[in-house]
Amino acid sequence: MKKKLPAGSLGYTEARRVTLADERAPFALLSGETIAPVAVEYEDYGPRDAEKVILICHAMTGDAHVAGWDKNWKRDGRAWRREKAGWWDNVVGPGKAIDTDVYRVICSNVLGSCYGTTGPADANPATGKPYGLRFPVVTVHGWVKLQKKLIDHLGIKKLHAVVGGSLGGQQALEWALAYPDLVNKSIVLAAAARLSAQGLAFNAVGRYAITNDPHFNGGDYYDGEPPRAGLAAARMLAHITYLSEESMHKKFGRRRQDHWHPGFDVEFQVESYLDYQGRKFVQRFDANSYMYITRAMDYYDAAAHWGGGSLVQACARVKSQVMVVSFTSDWLYPPRQCRELAMAINQNKLPVTYIEVPSDYGHDAFLIQTEEVSRLLRSFLSA
Amino acid sequence: MKKKLPAGSLGYTEARRVTLADERAPFALLSGETIAPVAVEYEDYGPRDAEKVILICHAMTGDAHVAGWDKNWKRDGRAWRREKAGWWDNVVGPGKAIDTDVYRVICSNVLGSCYGTTGPADANPATGKPYGLRFPVVTVHGWVKLQKKLIDHLGIKKLHAVVGGSLGGQQALEWALAYPDLVNKSIVLAAAARLSAQGLAFNAVGRYAITNDPHFNGGDYYDGEPPRAGLAAARMLAHITYLSEESMHKKFGRRRQDHWHPGFDVEFQVESYLDYQGRKFVQRFDANSYMYITRAMDYYDAAAHWGGGSLVQACARVKSQVMVVSFTSDWLYPPRQCRELAMAINQNKLPVTYIEVPSDYGHDAFLIQTEEVSRLLRSFLSA
Repeated sequence: MKKKLPAGSLGYTEARRVTLADERAPFALLSGETIAPVAVEYEDYGPRDAEKVILICHAMTGDAHVAGWDKNWKRDGRAWRREKAGWWDNVVGPGKAIDTDVYRVICSNVLGSCYGTTGPADANPATGKPYGLRFPVVTVHGWVKLQKKLIDHLGIKKLHAVVGGSLGGQQALEWALAYPDLVNKSIVLAAAARLSAQGLAFNAVGRYAITNDPHFNGGDYYDGEPPRAGLAAARMLAHITYLSEESMHKKFGRRRQDHWHPGFDVEFQVESYLDYQGRKFVQRFDANSYMYITRAMDYYDAAAHWGGGSLVQACARVKSQVMVVSFTSDWLYPPRQCRELAMAINQNKLPVTYIEVPSDYGHDAFLIQTEEVSRLLRSFLSA
Repeated sequence: MKKKLPAGSLGYTEARRVTLADERAPFALLSGETIAPVAVEYEDYGPRDAEKVILICHAMTGDAHVAGWDKNWKRDGRAWRREKAGWWDNVVGPGKAIDTDVYRVICSNVLGSCYGTTGPADANPATGKPYGLRFPVVTVHGWVKLQKKLIDHLGIKKLHAVVGGSLGGQQALEWALAYPDLVNKSIVLAAAARLSAQGLAFNAVGRYAITNDPHFNGGDYYDGEPPRAGLAAARMLAHITYLSEESMHKKFGRRRQDHWHPGFDVEFQVESYLDYQGRKFVQRFDANSYMYITRAMDYYDAAAHWGGGSLVQACARVKSQVMVVSFTSDWLYPPRQCRELAMAINQNKLPVTYIEVPSDYGHDAFLIQTEEVSRLLRSFLSA
């Protein structure tokens, strides 16, 4: 069965995998721990000899499959994928805003992921069994350090741009702070220098639901049933934070699937939507990866790490041109916090562009309002 | 051990219990079901012969113990209480805004509650075993109808005021719509005519966590372990919606209990707060009651029930003077939705007062900003 690919598509894209740390040279983490081996799965589009390279960083439950179609169907305890367009296929491809006719474009799965880069479902060489919660704690800092190793391995000396949304935006920021000499342009979408107390709270409840699912078994569930109900609850909850109140109101309001059925079955359309999101997610994601990646989101604090608590001081390190884009109805990384980041760069008399995009779509806007995002990317990348 | 009571306190208050429906005259519900027997637990303060009677309606996990001190310590499968001040003790008492020297004040536990009024933990006369999820679906409409039965039983002909916050505010509104001739003043705090899609979503995730706790066992857990983890998760989540982003930021920010401990233990102060709230709640509340009461919150829709979908048409029924009070940072029943209710009354050329109280405390403000609330109540009750 041959699928007709849409115009401007990269066609079928493939993931590559490379080992970037081994026992002789293990990968050192911010927590003080080390890990080996470390394999990284990534996708690599556009001309290999392109003058300009763009690194894209994926968000929490995203992956390296940014654009084009994916032929993989894996279910080997690590990855659950099927034929689908990449998560930013409207933005990345030939002739698109991140133009693969012009740029070489790279995106890798983060450490701790369930999509090919070494993660908690992989075998711990010390025991031969999956790491589970014995996997070391990962951070945005460590992810970026591993991306730097990948870039080195590919022989890339400088990045034209690092781009990301949400937790990917925090990686773009971290690149600007950790390797200021290696980045020309930094594009931070729907992300701030740290997560709010409310954001920490949502992550905490999500993880509580996972760890209290009896199938979780302290993270050692790979031989049996995974903690589906706990992971689904975490995802349902997270989905509320990805949409805005307005978008939920417009999309579902108080409409029912059918008429009133007094009881506890799924009845309102919004319940049905969340139920579906929960079910779909547990088929493609690993609960331990969710634990680690949300914790990395909690821990990221650019001001604490680079500025002794001062975001202005941290941002003095920046050498790239930075564009920060927020979305008015985003309440996970609200405009106020994104603007705070832009202001901190500006207070160092460094060049920064801050744009607040009017939106009803909430945090997910960077994935949905791809026309507006494409316009901003095109103009900033070519400036 | 004698406790010194604070000035202006009602002293020790006691709950009363009365049977208001039996097999000969069962209580009919909006769902079409009936239930018998129905006992109602209530508290009753102030002079029995007072000219003016005020009915207070409690919020979701509240109870009839509004003011004074409670000597009960019950743990009979239905109630878990200990010596504590009522939930609105700053507002209700001798000389206070709802002045028990002047008014007779009544508050009853809602149907489905775990605090003495008949609920899912009570024995189903058909089986002799607890109802569990065989308890009929309850609604705000039915709660108010049962309160009317209580008022009749007490020989009260007219209410000077019906007052409530949150789900209690919806009961105050329902009184104004269902029994317009019996109420002089209606006071609706931090409540709207219906819950938003986002509010439905939060309730759905909370119930999902409860029903997926294996101890829940379809609601039949009274012989064994209750579904503590599921109920705690629901409560933790609900707590996020009771606070505002600002209040969480001020109260906890990103502060840690101690220094950085990479891992999944409770580490941030906001995590510790939620953890504590979850633990505390499961000691005092029944998971099935939580299921029923959140569902009643979902189902309440004054416009659909009384106005064929039009809130303006529904509000044409109102004969009382209405005061609607919202709190600026409340995002469960945001000011916009509270104002919509006030506007609907106003469009019928009926008297309504709408006040938006500046607040950082979120939805819980009606329980916390008791000084402002008291000022508003005093002036509206005496006008």
